[in-house]
Amino acid sequence: MNKIEHIGIAVKDLEVSNELFEKLLGVPNYKMEEVLSEGVNTSFFKSGPNKIELLAATSAASPIAKYIEKRGEGVHHIAFAVDDIVAEIKRLKKEGFQVLNETPKKGADNKLVAFVHPKTANGVLVELCQEAPA
Amino acid sequence: MNKIEHIGIAVKDLEVSNELFEKLLGVPNYKMEEVLSEGVNTSFFKSGPNKIELLAATSAASPIAKYIEKRGEGVHHIAFAVDDIVAEIKRLKKEGFQVLNETPKKGADNKLVAFVHPKTANGVLVELCQEAPA
Repeated sequence: MNKIEHIGIAVKDLEVSNELFEKLLGVPNYKMEEVLSEGVNTSFFKSGPNKIELLAATSAASPIAKYIEKRGEGVHHIAFAVDDIVAEIKRLKKEGFQVLNETPKKGADNKLVAFVHPKTANGVLVELCQEAPA
Repeated sequence: MNKIEHIGIAVKDLEVSNELFEKLLGVPNYKMEEVLSEGVNTSFFKSGPNKIELLAATSAASPIAKYIEKRGEGVHHIAFAVDDIVAEIKRLKKEGFQVLNETPKKGADNKLVAFVHPKTANGVLVELCQEAPA
């Protein structure tokens, strides 16, 4: 895995948290994007080669709404950049990790993504992400 | 803040989790280090320009033991690399963040570190870290 592509942070109010993270990181967000399939609005900040992705639910059925209800605001997932997501999914399955979606799906920021179940990864929801072909 | 320096992950058993993260990341750890002041054993993995730091408590009084008791294993903190930790602490305090230690302290991996209270940072325990002068 090449680097930490981004850290996903579950927030209640995207506007409030945009202001907060602009103060924390010292830079404004560079992009906002709705991901319909996940029921989230996202906001991205750069920190050198890495990104912070804020995630706010757009409906009560969103995984982010459920996460916040259970655990409160905070780190939701860690995403690692990979060159070949299909090969990585295969490798991780062989190593005993539970991959939540065996076929990569389209995520925010023009990425193909797949998730590893936190139960098999020390409580960490791990995302693999590969730049989607043009 | 220059980049995500590392993500700290609270684990119960360092030996078990070392094996798990070696499988997940596809590389072995490159360093283990005890941090007496925090009551933790740590293990570091590289992911490109970033690191993953596993943290296991060495006593029941360790913040990591308390964290796991309350929330289970998982992401404990996010550390950002900064050039001038004293200036960053001052800036963040001015912006309204609660800095837990206003004087930087010595952390693992030859770093000067300071923490921002998660209550003021969307539930995220934020660490600032600067390479300690030789």
